[in-house]
Amino acid sequence: MERKEQEFLAYLKEISSIEQAVALLAWDARTLMPEGSSDFRSESIGYLSGLQFEMKQSGKMKQFIQAFEGKENTLGEVARCSLAEVKKNYELNSKLPKEELEAYIKASNTSENLWGTVRANDDFATFEPHLDTLIQFNKKFIDYWRKDEKTPYDVLLNQYEPGMTVEILDDVFSKLRAGIIALMDKIKTQGTPPRTDFIEQYMSKEDQRAFSEAVIKKMGYRFEEGRLDDTIHPFMQSVNRADARITTRWNENFFKMAIFGIIHEAGHGIYEQNVSPKWDYTPVSGGVSMGIHESQSLFHEIVIGSNRSFWQSNYDLLKKHAHGNLDEIDFDTFYRGLNETKASLIRVESDTLTYPLHIIIRYEIEKMIFNGEVATKDLPQIWNDKYEEYLGIRPANNREGILQDIHWAGGSFGYFPSYALGFMYAAQLKASMEKEMDISAILATDDYHQIREWLTDKIHQYGKSKTPSELMMAATGEVLNPQHLLDLQAKIYGDVYQF
Amino acid sequence: MERKEQEFLAYLKEISSIEQAVALLAWDARTLMPEGSSDFRSESIGYLSGLQFEMKQSGKMKQFIQAFEGKENTLGEVARCSLAEVKKNYELNSKLPKEELEAYIKASNTSENLWGTVRANDDFATFEPHLDTLIQFNKKFIDYWRKDEKTPYDVLLNQYEPGMTVEILDDVFSKLRAGIIALMDKIKTQGTPPRTDFIEQYMSKEDQRAFSEAVIKKMGYRFEEGRLDDTIHPFMQSVNRADARITTRWNENFFKMAIFGIIHEAGHGIYEQNVSPKWDYTPVSGGVSMGIHESQSLFHEIVIGSNRSFWQSNYDLLKKHAHGNLDEIDFDTFYRGLNETKASLIRVESDTLTYPLHIIIRYEIEKMIFNGEVATKDLPQIWNDKYEEYLGIRPANNREGILQDIHWAGGSFGYFPSYALGFMYAAQLKASMEKEMDISAILATDDYHQIREWLTDKIHQYGKSKTPSELMMAATGEVLNPQHLLDLQAKIYGDVYQF
Repeated sequence: MERKEQEFLAYLKEISSIEQAVALLAWDARTLMPEGSSDFRSESIGYLSGLQFEMKQSGKMKQFIQAFEGKENTLGEVARCSLAEVKKNYELNSKLPKEELEAYIKASNTSENLWGTVRANDDFATFEPHLDTLIQFNKKFIDYWRKDEKTPYDVLLNQYEPGMTVEILDDVFSKLRAGIIALMDKIKTQGTPPRTDFIEQYMSKEDQRAFSEAVIKKMGYRFEEGRLDDTIHPFMQSVNRADARITTRWNENFFKMAIFGIIHEAGHGIYEQNVSPKWDYTPVSGGVSMGIHESQSLFHEIVIGSNRSFWQSNYDLLKKHAHGNLDEIDFDTFYRGLNETKASLIRVESDTLTYPLHIIIRYEIEKMIFNGEVATKDLPQIWNDKYEEYLGIRPANNREGILQDIHWAGGSFGYFPSYALGFMYAAQLKASMEKEMDISAILATDDYHQIREWLTDKIHQYGKSKTPSELMMAATGEVLNPQHLLDLQAKIYGDVYQF
Repeated sequence: MERKEQEFLAYLKEISSIEQAVALLAWDARTLMPEGSSDFRSESIGYLSGLQFEMKQSGKMKQFIQAFEGKENTLGEVARCSLAEVKKNYELNSKLPKEELEAYIKASNTSENLWGTVRANDDFATFEPHLDTLIQFNKKFIDYWRKDEKTPYDVLLNQYEPGMTVEILDDVFSKLRAGIIALMDKIKTQGTPPRTDFIEQYMSKEDQRAFSEAVIKKMGYRFEEGRLDDTIHPFMQSVNRADARITTRWNENFFKMAIFGIIHEAGHGIYEQNVSPKWDYTPVSGGVSMGIHESQSLFHEIVIGSNRSFWQSNYDLLKKHAHGNLDEIDFDTFYRGLNETKASLIRVESDTLTYPLHIIIRYEIEKMIFNGEVATKDLPQIWNDKYEEYLGIRPANNREGILQDIHWAGGSFGYFPSYALGFMYAAQLKASMEKEMDISAILATDDYHQIREWLTDKIHQYGKSKTPSELMMAATGEVLNPQHLLDLQAKIYGDVYQF
């Protein structure tokens, strides 16, 4: 058995070597690649992605799974956890007929490529049949995949966030929505709006970069195991544990965007950099779920990034990089203006308070699509009505409405809730961390290592060896609880809007 | 047969997709990769290199070769030329026993990794047994490979430069050496040395980059199909025809280094960018040999880069980027100082006149190793004696002597002559081009397209579909002739040293 275990791990290492190459090819395509190379790159990524997929679904892999069946406990920890991960994916993929999967990949590529154009042209009519095709594919796949999940949509939720259900989310989101809307109302009726004009003061890209790099280094992002590059749609790409690259875009007249964007991506990078090396070259390496991954990016962006002490201790550095442009702004004015909240139509431009509402709208629509009876052509109307109801603003067109996100165009349904889970997990982790240390006192110094170490201890190190709910229970002693996010929001906005 | 041909081309495309990934992984490792990732990267490159090697030597490939045997003329041009290339490599690799090849790769990796340390410590004694192991391996491989080559060393020469022999090189190099030494003597006795102090004027990295980019764009390097990044040991890496990346290092007090280095690498890049698209995804794509590749880098660096009109028309731009630091230097003083020649101990720091002597020394030593009787331990002494004899300077230690280059440490024997061939080919091409156009007149303008097009027409487009000698015969009407390089050197240095 021991030899078989070695062979299994060696095979996983081969797959990982290919995945690392694909990760670099993809990162390069989104950052530095000369435009002329894009067709070649698609070929290369397509072939190698197919190759690693085939290796995961091969007869050889099946033999490993069968050989270890019932003998999981004789395996070492790394092989045992890897096997569980391998098996889960093997079964998921085995259930889809090859021709249908290939047709689906083709359809989602087409639709994703079309998305840029239809969004620019505000043309939902052209997009609708493509979107509908993807929905029908997903409905069929749900039938193939479904075991004991209560509703069809649960099947999708469970794939992005193992263990997540409509039952849990309905409850959590209704509390969250009510709490956020109540707080928005309070801000509107009792709040004193902050001054915000200085947020558009000029700061050069180089200065924004220098400030952001200094700050994320303090947070624990290691440049010896990462990089920061320019891109159009910012992302973090880990090639492996020791190579977690982050990206940003810049606006020299809106420094908030890059600074918070970089902090957010650094949070993702810090997670990847601190997964235990014992999982290297196995499918257990890397973050466990989208929701937990977002909890790490948002812990840095929201929990640290909205902390008064953090900004107080870094404001001099920021002013230095503003070369006089912020000298007239006292710290309190700066801090309050930085944390303004304002309902927006666009998810990626929204703030800590309103962001979850954007997600709840998408969640409710996805639930209608897969559990209810809704025609694809009616989705824009439903979208716009919900924005008006929850956020008090109505999109004037589909470009700033249903066409704003690429996710559905690429066939990603059930993914959006992860963002809101990330907010709630981050706030819940913060509440637990607070019991062991004074976060604000730490952020008033230049040494944040206790915070990073707590997160590594509770979350990062485990990779995919524990489920999201296992991690949250062990770290916080309770299941998902939206109250922590509502408490955090109340604290931030009570301070900023002075009530 | 047609279906078999399609399958063959599809298989080559798969191999090419892997090779492109390996090329990007390698480029990234030498430019941007975070240091922490280096072990992961070695694994990834190692696995994928092995995979493409296996695919080239597979039973499947053997079947293609057998199926097309004697039916080459029924194949289309692309498949036919690809088959010839595939067959050549298949046979070469098939002749080496797998265990010996693996042992050799291991030994050369060890030796290459050791090289940095022994060079720094000036420690040939530690290096000697490793070097000797590589030599013995190569001697054995030569026995496996040798067909009708006249001497063992011919086998190695032929691998880097198809058709090249000791007989040709002995003749060519003796003429070249005599001519260069005579010219060096003339410069010493009759020349007026140029003023050179201004070469060390400060020029920022950004200014050097802006000037170099402007110049290589005029030469025809396309940034839509390339990039320029920083590195330690400059190189060009083509990921594919539309992605030929160049690199450089900088010295802000010695602008010559980066400017000529960038022009050199751009010459390599221009070659790759202009190989005909019909060879895409086949082994025919890319440059035909090291020697021809160097002819393209050196055509740009030496032929264009030493041209008086070229510098006259670009001097104002350079002065602009020097921000006043060159204002006191009139053009004639500048041009002459730029082209100073001075014997140096280090190959990569040498100039257009003395460079070939560095190669001839290495050629003669390699010939002694493989055709003669020389003990590895005696090589430093031989090296130093030859430097004294040909260049009039003697290395004080092995760091600036035999340990200066990485090539032998990596097992590359027979490779060095390519550099000298590149010089001679470049000058020979120039002489032919001159018959069709006035190169200096073109370089006095900002539109060099005729030059680039001539090179594409005669060299670039063919990829590996013609041999170096076929290309040179068709382009210049004669076999390798060292007189053209001697003529070019006489012209440049007669002008610079005023005799």
